[in-house]
Amino acid sequence: LQPLSATERLLRVCRGEPVDRPPVWLMRQAGRYLPGYRRVRKQVAFLDLVRDVERAIEVSLEPLDAIGTEAVIFFSDIFTPIPGLGIEVDFKPGPVIAEPIRSLRQVEALRAPDPRESVPFVFEILRGLRAELASREVPLLGFAGAPFTLAAYLVEGGGSRHFATWKRMLHREPELARALLDRLADCTVAYLNSQIEAGAQAVQLFDTWAGTLSPADYREWVLPWHREIAAKLDRAAAPFILYVNDGAHVVEEMAASGADVLSLDWRIDLAAAARRVGPRASLQGNLDPCALAAEPEAIAAAVRRMAAEVAPARGWIANLGHGCLPGTPVEGAQAFTEAVRALAPPK
Amino acid sequence: LQPLSATERLLRVCRGEPVDRPPVWLMRQAGRYLPGYRRVRKQVAFLDLVRDVERAIEVSLEPLDAIGTEAVIFFSDIFTPIPGLGIEVDFKPGPVIAEPIRSLRQVEALRAPDPRESVPFVFEILRGLRAELASREVPLLGFAGAPFTLAAYLVEGGGSRHFATWKRMLHREPELARALLDRLADCTVAYLNSQIEAGAQAVQLFDTWAGTLSPADYREWVLPWHREIAAKLDRAAAPFILYVNDGAHVVEEMAASGADVLSLDWRIDLAAAARRVGPRASLQGNLDPCALAAEPEAIAAAVRRMAAEVAPARGWIANLGHGCLPGTPVEGAQAFTEAVRALAPPK
Repeated sequence: LQPLSATERLLRVCRGEPVDRPPVWLMRQAGRYLPGYRRVRKQVAFLDLVRDVERAIEVSLEPLDAIGTEAVIFFSDIFTPIPGLGIEVDFKPGPVIAEPIRSLRQVEALRAPDPRESVPFVFEILRGLRAELASREVPLLGFAGAPFTLAAYLVEGGGSRHFATWKRMLHREPELARALLDRLADCTVAYLNSQIEAGAQAVQLFDTWAGTLSPADYREWVLPWHREIAAKLDRAAAPFILYVNDGAHVVEEMAASGADVLSLDWRIDLAAAARRVGPRASLQGNLDPCALAAEPEAIAAAVRRMAAEVAPARGWIANLGHGCLPGTPVEGAQAFTEAVRALAPPK
Repeated sequence: LQPLSATERLLRVCRGEPVDRPPVWLMRQAGRYLPGYRRVRKQVAFLDLVRDVERAIEVSLEPLDAIGTEAVIFFSDIFTPIPGLGIEVDFKPGPVIAEPIRSLRQVEALRAPDPRESVPFVFEILRGLRAELASREVPLLGFAGAPFTLAAYLVEGGGSRHFATWKRMLHREPELARALLDRLADCTVAYLNSQIEAGAQAVQLFDTWAGTLSPADYREWVLPWHREIAAKLDRAAAPFILYVNDGAHVVEEMAASGADVLSLDWRIDLAAAARRVGPRASLQGNLDPCALAAEPEAIAAAVRRMAAEVAPARGWIANLGHGCLPGTPVEGAQAFTEAVRALAPPK
């Protein structure tokens, strides 16, 4: 196969078509481990950076040259669209919900705004990035938080080890939980489709806390909303990547969503994932971000091992199993993308 | 089979022998969700309660009558033996290590005391409980934290979502990490064997953070020390129960430890676990503790579903998949043990 542009390579893998070699990017690649990002954050608070079109574009692009990534995801946060629903969110530094959702009255009072009106800056950022990236032939990714994960924060009131208030609601007030998930799914579909309209060439849904459920509870409380989102996205314009953190035990259920790409964390061998998913979806992942602290040669060996394990899969996007952590060595991230570029073309 | 005493029932299941019905207890069954425990904690701080023989015995026994549990685990904490090694630990309320371990010099300076001298109160509590329990024919359980989990806290300096400092040490300073795990494994073996000598009839090792590793890293950084502990415990006197939190992806590796019982969290179907473990070990678990918030009939249905799924296993101890959480309804815990007692004898 002839060398492909980064955009063609990523989109072909999403659709299960052959490529010259795997594409590579890193979740949370624009973050505190990068010097340019830290410089910008000295001038602007996190919440302001998300709304600052010029600077958000700047930090989104930094990883292209700094670590050699081959896709750009716009700088934002899964909570960006939440205030538009009428929910007050603060960051200290994790999200804190002023009035946690505990009643049907609160769910019914949620607004369902057109995201192009409630968060116009998101689409300015995307259009700006798309213009910058066109000449480089690098793909632009959109993203959103998944209904289960957003609901976990909105009910719990913030981050939590067990999200026990939210998970108990599933058992004690299932109708209330369903009503909240339905509302959030509608907002997520509108938000992602607006991102696609503004230039996102693929979109990733982040379900950080769905992996805290048993397989049976996941089938009841997560899968139906993933399916709904998969069905309502403009998939002809942008493939759908589904990330579930800590989801080794629900890989089959992830595949049942109908997503084009399953993004996996490091708790599963890619060989096992390829076997369990079969031709239903391509895979993305899954190096433990802590492994970027190793020597470059050890990182390259890990990349070659992943490539060998994932060979039977329909397609593979090289990535981490979770977002880059603050203390990640830049050299480690560079070694990762370089090792992917050095992979031999598939037979 | 004739009705068995609670002690006979639990020990027979651990050895894979037939029983009249499954035994039942709940991890962290003596905790803040119980009124007697809360009363005692108004008088005594957590760290003092662990050393207060009379009150520790009192709170250890409360779940027998309060929730109908059928085994007693002595009230303590995985950090109880750590100050004896020369490491200062505080609770605020999670563990905080005054001087996190970051050098070989610190590891070499660790003491290896005889636990009967460094934490004599632990063995007084166990002897006292065993005397109380003899007439009731209820088994007494000992426990300890696993080397990987203790090392995670000792290196990180306290609790953490990612334990990135500790996990990076595995990649950057593997010899240092190994030296620390070796020392902790020696201490754990001495501590558990002293508990057995003082009357513990089975012992459980808690590995709370080993499940944060990929399968390959788990085989390198966890399994060898589990095997060592399994080999050095006085197994003729007390079977060995291994708990790994979030371990669905390493169930085969848990079985390779040689433990008598694998204690699983709720992220795995018991049918799948039974298939993957086969005749190598009995199983313990695994209801999501948040599910104890459901109505009693829903809890009973969940118990019956677990019993049906686990039927092909070598043996089964009904339990939660994690410790009881603070907000657990007492009625939910009662409904759980009652539903296990109502199970039909196995065919």
